[in-house]
Parts: sequence; C-alpha cells; structure tokens
Amino acid sequence: MSNLSPKVAIVMGSKSDWATMQEATLILDELQVAYHVEIVSAHRTPDKLFRFAENAETSGYKVIIAGAGGAAHLPGMIAAKTLVPVLGVPVKSSMLSGVDSLYSIVQMPKGIPVGTLAIGPAGAANAGLLAAQILAAWDDELIARLKTFREKQTNLVLDNPDPRD
Amino acid sequence: MSNLSPKVAIVMGSKSDWATMQEATLILDELQVAYHVEIVSAHRTPDKLFRFAENAETSGYKVIIAGAGGAAHLPGMIAAKTLVPVLGVPVKSSMLSGVDSLYSIVQMPKGIPVGTLAIGPAGAANAGLLAAQILAAWDDELIARLKTFREKQTNLVLDNPDPRD
Amino acid sequence: MSNLSPKVAIVMGSKSDWATMQEATLILDELQVAYHVEIVSAHRTPDKLFRFAENAETSGYKVIIAGAGGAAHLPGMIAAKTLVPVLGVPVKSSMLSGVDSLYSIVQMPKGIPVGTLAIGPAGAANAGLLAAQILAAWDDELIARLKTFREKQTNLVLDNPDPRD
Amino acid sequence: MSNLSPKVAIVMGSKSDWATMQEATLILDELQVAYHVEIVSAHRTPDKLFRFAENAETSGYKVIIAGAGGAAHLPGMIAAKTLVPVLGVPVKSSMLSGVDSLYSIVQMPKGIPVGTLAIGPAGAANAGLLAAQILAAWDDELIARLKTFREKQTNLVLDNPDPRD
Amino acid sequence: MSNLSPKVAIVMGSKSDWATMQEATLILDELQVAYHVEIVSAHRTPDKLFRFAENAETSGYKVIIAGAGGAAHLPGMIAAKTLVPVLGVPVKSSMLSGVDSLYSIVQMPKGIPVGTLAIGPAGAANAGLLAAQILAAWDDELIARLKTFREKQTNLVLDNPDPRD
Amino acid sequence: MSNLSPKVAIVMGSKSDWATMQEATLILDELQVAYHVEIVSAHRTPDKLFRFAENAETSGYKVIIAGAGGAAHLPGMIAAKTLVPVLGVPVKSSMLSGVDSLYSIVQMPKGIPVGTLAIGPAGAANAGLLAAQILAAWDDELIARLKTFREKQTNLVLDNPDPRD
Amino acid sequence: MSNLSPKVAIVMGSKSDWATMQEATLILDELQVAYHVEIVSAHRTPDKLFRFAENAETSGYKVIIAGAGGAAHLPGMIAAKTLVPVLGVPVKSSMLSGVDSLYSIVQMPKGIPVGTLAIGPAGAANAGLLAAQILAAWDDELIARLKTFREKQTNLVLDNPDPRD
Amino acid sequence: MSNLSPKVAIVMGSKSDWATMQEATLILDELQVAYHVEIVSAHRTPDKLFRFAENAETSGYKVIIAGAGGAAHLPGMIAAKTLVPVLGVPVKSSMLSGVDSLYSIVQMPKGIPVGTLAIGPAGAANAGLLAAQILAAWDDELIARLKTFREKQTNLVLDNPDPRD
Repeated sequence: MSNLSPKVAIVMGSKSDWATMQEATLILDELQVAYHVEIVSAHRTPDKLFRFAENAETSGYKVIIAGAGGAAHLPGMIAAKTLVPVLGVPVKSSMLSGVDSLYSIVQMPKGIPVGTLAIGPAGAANAGLLAAQILAAWDDELIARLKTFREKQTNLVLDNPDPRD
Repeated sequence: MSNLSPKVAIVMGSKSDWATMQEATLILDELQVAYHVEIVSAHRTPDKLFRFAENAETSGYKVIIAGAGGAAHLPGMIAAKTLVPVLGVPVKSSMLSGVDSLYSIVQMPKGIPVGTLAIGPAGAANAGLLAAQILAAWDDELIARLKTFREKQTNLVLDNPDPRD
Repeated sequence: MSNLSPKVAIVMGSKSDWATMQEATLILDELQVAYHVEIVSAHRTPDKLFRFAENAETSGYKVIIAGAGGAAHLPGMIAAKTLVPVLGVPVKSSMLSGVDSLYSIVQMPKGIPVGTLAIGPAGAANAGLLAAQILAAWDDELIARLKTFREKQTNLVLDNPDPRD
Repeated sequence: MSNLSPKVAIVMGSKSDWATMQEATLILDELQVAYHVEIVSAHRTPDKLFRFAENAETSGYKVIIAGAGGAAHLPGMIAAKTLVPVLGVPVKSSMLSGVDSLYSIVQMPKGIPVGTLAIGPAGAANAGLLAAQILAAWDDELIARLKTFREKQTNLVLDNPDPRD
Repeated sequence: MSNLSPKVAIVMGSKSDWATMQEATLILDELQVAYHVEIVSAHRTPDKLFRFAENAETSGYKVIIAGAGGAAHLPGMIAAKTLVPVLGVPVKSSMLSGVDSLYSIVQMPKGIPVGTLAIGPAGAANAGLLAAQILAAWDDELIARLKTFREKQTNLVLDNPDPRD
Repeated sequence: MSNLSPKVAIVMGSKSDWATMQEATLILDELQVAYHVEIVSAHRTPDKLFRFAENAETSGYKVIIAGAGGAAHLPGMIAAKTLVPVLGVPVKSSMLSGVDSLYSIVQMPKGIPVGTLAIGPAGAANAGLLAAQILAAWDDELIARLKTFREKQTNLVLDNPDPRD
Repeated sequence: MSNLSPKVAIVMGSKSDWATMQEATLILDELQVAYHVEIVSAHRTPDKLFRFAENAETSGYKVIIAGAGGAAHLPGMIAAKTLVPVLGVPVKSSMLSGVDSLYSIVQMPKGIPVGTLAIGPAGAANAGLLAAQILAAWDDELIARLKTFREKQTNLVLDNPDPRD
Repeated sequence: MSNLSPKVAIVMGSKSDWATMQEATLILDELQVAYHVEIVSAHRTPDKLFRFAENAETSGYKVIIAGAGGAAHLPGMIAAKTLVPVLGVPVKSSMLSGVDSLYSIVQMPKGIPVGTLAIGPAGAANAGLLAAQILAAWDDELIARLKTFREKQTNLVLDNPDPRD
C-alpha cells in the first residue's frame, strides 16, 4: 500500500523518532493512503533536506509530515523550501518533555507555516489523519473511508460507556 | 474577493480575536483566495458551533481556520464535528501569554487533529498561507500566485541585506 | 449506593481516565452520595456530549464532575451547554504532566465557569468532596457525614504526630 | 441588593485584589444574588481568617468566593476550616503572571477541595456565576434569571456574527 | 541528641514528606543540634497548626523548618502566626515536579517572610544547615562544628579531584 | 541608624538592583536595625565578592541579604565562602520575569544553603524582615519592635475591611 | 573598523533583530575587532543561508554570531553547514519572552553544536565578547584589549560601591 | 591522548556529573584533542575554582568546558575569573529537568559570557565538538579530522534512510 506514487511523505530526524512516527503510518495504512518514509536530518544531512524539499512538488507529494525532537528544525526548514503543506510532529525529548520540540516547530515566523500536531505518538497519528483529510477534499473514496474510520471511533466509545467494565 | 463560494472559512471565538485573525484575511486577499469570516464561540454559542461544523462540508469549505484564546476549545470542537481540515490559531491571552491557548489547541487526543500555528498574528497569517498551500495542490493558478508571493518575500530580504539601513 | 436518582454525574473522556476518576467515586461511596458514571468524549462523541449536557438538569443532576487530559475540552463544553455546576479534573497527561489539561480546563472565558480541582487523583477525590459539600448545603444528614469524614481525617493526623513511626 | 442575609461571601487578601474581585460582584448584582464583601488576609490577619471560616456556616453562607495572589493561601485555608464550598480566584501577580497564584490555589491536597477559576477578572466573574449556579439548584427564580443571562450572552454573539462590524 | 530543649522544630504536612525532611534531621544530628519533629498539616489540622505557631516562641524554638508539597501552605501559615524565623522546604510533588510547592512557599507577600530552600531532599538538608548557621551566630561551639563540617565537605572534593576514579 | 556596627549586610549585583533592594532597607530602618549596603558583583568583581564573604564573620554580620537577577550567582557564592546565614532575593529580570533569578538562587546543592525570598520588591522587604526576626531571637527590644510592626500591619487590614472604601 | 577582512560574521533573521544584535557590534567596535553584518533568514532565504554557511570558512570567518527569535532555526542551520564555531543569540519574542527562541537555539542534537548566550541584548553583547575571547587565544594584542575592557568593567563597580549614589 | 599539554579543560561540579560530562571526553578522544579533567565545585571548593580559573591562561587552556546542575554557578564563576572562553553544559537536575541548570548557566549578565550547550549528554558531547571547532581555526589537521567526523556522521544517516530497517 505504501509503495506506488504516494501523495504523502513522512520524514523524521533520526531512527529513534520512528517509535513515534510509525503511528502516522498505521493510520495511513488503515485509510489506504500510500506514503513514503525516510530519515532526513536537518542538522546531520542538511543538503539532503534541501534536495528532498526542492523535489517534493515534482515527486507528487501533496502533504509532508515531518517529525523531530529538541531544537526540531526539520519541519520548518522543509517548509522554507517547498510550497507543499508541511505538518510538524514534536517528538518527546528526553530533557524537556517535548516543550522544546513543540516551541521549535510551532513558533514559525510569518511567511512560512507549519501545521503542528500534539507532542508524541498522538500527534503523529493525527498528522496521518490530517494528511488524509487534506487529500480527501478531492477524493470521494477517501472521504468515505475517513467517515467510516470516525464512525468506528465514535462507536467504540458509545458501545462502551461504562469505564468500570 | 471574499464573497462568492469561498473554500476557506475563518472563525474566531470573539470580536476581540479579530485584531489577530485579520492577518489571515490579509494573506488570503493578497493570494486572491475567497473566504468566509464569522464569530463562532465554543462556549457562548455551542449550538451554532455544531451547526457550522456539520454544514462545513456541504458549504464547500476545504479548510477551516479557527482562532481562540485561553481555554481555546473552538478549533478542537469544530474538528470533532467535521472532516474538513481545521487549522488552529492560538490567540495571545492576557494572563498566560498564549501558552494556555497553545496547549488547549495543539494537545488534541489521537483521532481528532488540529494543525496548529504560532501564537498571535504571525500564526494567523500563516494559517492563511497554509490554507492557500492546501488549496494550491489542486489549483495551478494559486500555486503560481504562491510562488510569486514567496519570491517577493525572499527578495525583500535579499534586496535589503544590511540591518543598519 | 450509586444506582438510584443520583444527584452527581461523573463523566470522563476515555476509559484510561478511570484510574484517576474512580477516586471521586470512592469519596462519594464513603459519604453515601449516589452518582452516575459514564464515558463521554468531547472529541470522539461530541453529539453524546451535547445530549448529556442538555439533559443534565432534567436528569436531576445537581453537580457534574468531568475529568479529561491534554486538550481537555470536556468540562468546558458541558459547562457551555448546561447551568448545572461543572467541576473539572485535569487528568495527568503523558507529555506535559497535566499542565496542558489544567490550562485547558481552568482558563475558561468570562461567562462559562468550570470549578477546577488539582491535577490527578487528588483532584478527582476533591471533586467528589466538593460535590458533596455543595449538596450538603441542603442536606443535614450529608453535612453530618461530611463532618464525621473531616474529623476522621483530622484525627488520623493528630493521632500519628511522629513521622518516624 | 447586597445587604441582607447574603448566601455568598466574597473575600480577598488585600484591597489591591478588588479591581479583580469586583467582577464577581457585578455578576451577582446582575443576577440579584446578595453577597457579603470583606478583606481577609491569610498572612496578615490569620486569626480573622479562622473566625470568618468557623462562622461561615452559621452566617448562612452557602458559597465562599476567595481571591488571592502570589502564595495565595486564603482560599485553601478557608476551605480547611469550613465545609461551605470554597471557590478560588487566582489574582494575577506582578511577577509570575498569576501562575504562582494558580498553583497555590488549585493544587490542594486530597481532603480539602477548592474549586478554582481562571486567573484574573474573567475568573472572578466566573466565580460569581458558578456561585449563582450552585445556589440555583434550589432556587427556581434564580435558575430562570441565569437562563436569561445566558440567552442574552448567546444572543450578543449570534446577533453580531461579523467581527469586522 | 534530639530530646531536650530543642531550638529547632521540624514540621511537615504529612508522613510521606518524611523521606524528604529526614535529611534535615541527619544534618542536625551530625552538628549535634537538638530538634523537635512533628506532623502538622495546614489543611487537615489547621487548629493544631495555629497552636503550634502560637506556642513556638515560648517553646523555645529559634528556627522552624517546615516542609510541604503541592499547594504548600504550611510554612507560610506558620510564619503568619509567629515571629520565629521559618525556613520552607518545597517537597517534590507527584504532578508538577515541585514547581507548585516552590511557588506556594517562596512567593509570600510583603510582611510575612519564609526563607525558602531548594526543592526536595537537598533543600531539606540545607534547611538543617541554615538553621544551624542561624543558631551558630550565638554559639561558638556550634560555629566550630560547622567549620569542621564544611572543611570535611570541601576536603571530600579536594581529595577526589578525578571524576573517573 | 544605618551607620555603626551593623549586624546586617545588604549587597546586590548592580546599581539597577537598588530599586528592588531598597525595600529591605526601609523595613530595617523602621525596625531600627543597622545595616551596611554595598554593590558586589559576582561576575564583574569576583575578588571583591570573596573578600567580602571571607570578612563577613569578623565584620560582625549576623545575616547577609544578597539580591541579584538573571544567572544570579551572588547569594550562592557568598554562601559558599562564609557561614553567616545568607538570604537571597531574586530580582525580576527583563527577559524571564525573574524565574531565572529564582531558580539560580533557590536551587542550591546540598551543603551550601541560601534562604530565598519572593521575586522582586516584596522579597526584598521580606528579606529585611526575616533578618530582623533572626536577630530578634537574641534581642528582646527588637522582638518587641517586630511585634509592634506586625500588629500595625494586622490592624491596617482589620481597620479597613471593606475593599470598596 | 568593520570593513576589512573581518574574522567575525554577525547574521540575524530580520531587520527587527538589529535592535538586539547591534549590542554585539558595539562590543566588537570597542575591542577593535572587525566584523561583517548581514541579514540572513533561515525561513525566507534558505538558499542564501546555505551559501553563506558553505562560504564561511573561505570567507575567513573564525566565529559566526547568529541571532534569531521564535522558532529560531538560523544558528542551528548555519552550524549544520559549516565547521566555523557558531554562537547563537535568542532574540526576545513578542509572545513567549524568548523561551521559544532559547529552546530552539540551545537544544541542538548531538553532533551539531551552537554556543548559546542569554536572551536579548545582554546575550548579543556577550556573543561579541565571547567571539573576541575566542580570537584572542591567538592574538596577544586582542587579549590585552580584553584585559583592559574587563578591568574597566570591574573598576566601574569597584569605584561606585554605594547603590544609593 | 589526554595526557600532555592539553588545550581543553573539562571541569564539573561533582562526581555525579561524570555520566553526563564523559560525552565531551569521548568526542575529544575521537578527534585526538588532549584535555584535562577535574572536579571543581563552585559551592564546596570556591577557592579551588578561583585558583583554577586564575591559572587557566598560563596552564595553556584555550577552551574550558564546565558542567553543573541546579543552581549551576560553576561555568559563570570561572568565566568571571578568566578570559579563556567558557562553554557551559547544563546537567539534568533531579527536580526541574535541568531548566534550572540551563537558566543558571545561560542567563549571564552583559560582560561575562558563557557559551551554553543543550541540557544533558548531548550538550556535553557538543561542548567537546565546539571546543574542537574553536581550536581547529588554527589547526589544519584538526579541521581535517573534524571534516571526516562530520562526513561519517552524515553518511551514517544517508546510508540508512529507512527508519524501519
């Protein structure tokens, strides 16, 4: 499902971010949205970052999901180099609980936006969902799958109303 | 420009948020993207919020920008009621500098995403830009206007390299 | 004790909040105050939230205790839809220690109040106690039980003054 | 309106808190709820604090609203000495924006609850509202006035939907 | 050593604070300073708190060390009721790492001082040391013991300069 | 009053701290406690700091009050060089509201205590008061003046109970 | 002084940073250290940033001072593209007091260091000083000027010991 | 490699900082940069701190790396006593996650700079790297080794682009 002409790219600063970022892939798998996954480090591979971002549009990506921790420059620098919408996921840092990651990603200056999700795995999952919602605006089948996804999510709560069960 | 079949809706919790949120409209005006503007208060008009969100898809909105301050529930509750992508703008609060607004908007649970921008006017402007970038994926003219916008933005810095001038 | 005509409703955003929120039920059990317990998610079941809040008054609830974590919108949105007093319990979040939950619950705008308790289990227990104190204003037997409860609490400290024992 | 057999007491740590706390009185005036107002300082008049709290029940108070800033001990110490429900209002401090006030009031230990409102004037207004909601559970005329109050509040937003007006 | 006419009283809000506060006693034991230890809870035993503080001067205490966590009112309320100098120890709280305890203790209003030490066991040990330093101003033998204590502390570092050993 | 054989030294890192630190002198003036005032900068005059601290005991100081802002090293470094008790006053910093000053002063490691007061002028005033309380343990006239001071402080509140006056 | 073969480059994200960053130039002027000043925006001129960093070594820069605010990516991205030491200055942001700038600059991952100075003008001045100290290791005349600078700084404090003057 | 005429000194406040600070030595070992390691406590051995700093220049040190936690005065006090550039490493504290260490080190006043690295082991490693980069400006062989180091670092990411491997 994740191997031909994907419209979503998921990049992250290091292999250790995978535990967080795979949540985005699980959501996209469930919604049958193809994606590309790659490690791109803003600080250790800045040239690769630029090439990736410069080619994003011609690669056919319609949304880029970028996860990073600490002084998390990856989402913002990709956003500076492409007009493809960038969604940022603050990975929980070992020292400051991800507040540093959150501030580094969300506090972008006027002119270069990054749509930022919650810190950690929930944010990664939601980046996958938001990417799908963006694509769904022009994809009736995907919007239908998203509706089913939400209904299941809602029914799971409705069907189990008692927290003591 | 902002009056026929807009694909972007800009809502905010109160009139006092307008000083912040108008930045989004200025960007969209410049990019010739039509939008709808309305006050929708999560706490004072919850029923209007629900009707607005339920009708968002049929209203033709492809992106919703929602700004709110303090216990900023507006973006998250709209997101809970529609599959149209929601971008949240934390309005600076008078007491906690907008950290409360930021946390209330960005820390959404798994399942209901809000793409969050920076606190304050820069975030509002960027919400407008990100909305345009999302629409541009399927609009060649808009992507061209966005490219011009960015080039102008870049050239403004390149042409004035000396901060002492 | 918790099964007929309860005056207190205890709701929470997800099953994982139960570990925290059951502290409220333990206090109410001890004080012989009947209560209703239910999972109501602001984000995954917004319609249920509205129905719950709209029916709160006719259901006979005199106090609603709502616990939630992260972008904790449940207490505030219930408060927006009913005049029954709402007590909010910030559940400790995995990323920001519950500061996000606290700000999302306590920083309500003028016009829609939520009485907020401490983060975590102590806050849940105190929500139970405060609910009982509110009901006790019109219930002489309950005020007597509350006095006994406090005396026991005080005596437990007075009778064990040496921390080294 | 605020002069005979009031069911609500509003106390604050110093005269400088009045600018914040008068918001509570304005709400109660509008709702025709009588109240008593007095300066009671936890640190400068601890004995008065104890006498006030010990007499609260026999004074006929059904709710106590206590506002304080910095190491804001007033709400918690009153709560420790009476079973009348205490609502705490964190007054914005000059040094830490009221985060110190908020933490000192809301983080009460298990056994002694304080229902805490937002930092500053909005919190004070909401303390007045929440007090009225608590009283209204046993006062049909007050609940009617509260409903009117809310409707007006809602209509004010509904009737002015355009932030640019 | 800790049993006759002690000049130092060590009080804490609950038995669970003992793990932290015993550090103060270990220091005082080593310096041969007698002390009294007791649980006094501001919130659960407010009357005992007042009696304790009112009697502090006639009990012969020259310094009071008070440890508490969360909305830590104990040090400040003792200080409000006596002129005996109060040293406050913020106990690490389970939710906010002791920042709440620190703010509640240190941010006292003008007029009622609490000398505050670091959060946790290091702060408790230092409260013991500072109490001894205060007493030592009028006790030549104690100042001598303190000098020995410091020399040992210094020599321990000087004699082991290589962190790799 | 502040010119012969003072038992209290008040030092601060720079002239700009005087606006804060003079509050300590006003209190000591009122209590007729002599003091010495001097600028001692930990970072710009480290050798003077060491000489000051080394001579503190023979200078007859019984308490040292040290105020500093930002990376506020003055109180802690004096404490490292003398056994005279050191009280630290965090001066409000222009960038971080004094949280940096507070943490730098209060979070001293085990072995070297600094009794820390509130951020800003209130903390400076309280440092003066606490110094007086420490001296008063061996000075019956001072304890009497302190009692008068407190009574006046208490009566000022008791005599003006209505915040609306 | 700042016009031939400078060894220090001072870059900043926007013209508005100049008010802060000029402090670095004033220090370098006083120490007779030549420098180059230029606006380089990580987000609006990423390609210029890369060219600047790639050419830094051959341009003869021995130290780069980079100032930025908010999601301050400039220092870290320059550091990723050159081995010339980078000193980062967090410019005070309008929303979060510069905490966001500080975290974005200082929390760099292992492998790409940025030596970070204090938030705001003091940090900019110190970046200039630290750059001079780095150069001085191989420049006897500069070390002499630095010693004079420090002596003057020290004497300014020593000669004005009374804050009341 | 670390035993003759080292140009880098690595000092730390206590043996417990070694787990963090050894990261600096591992980097310097890999880059074949000699260094000196020693425990120097600002608070427990202030005189040693002064002697160390006073002798730093004649000892031949070109960079000093200083790590400390809590009220971390070591880097700043060394900087106050020498013109050798000081790099500060905030060691993670047990109570406040190292935010206290970070603020105490980075928020130095104008006139005495400390180049501050990230909290914890990553910061220590980067202090080693930055020290090497500073030395490399005048050492062609070292700059070559640094280039190799970076290439390896970059290639490690480039050669393993898939986080799922």
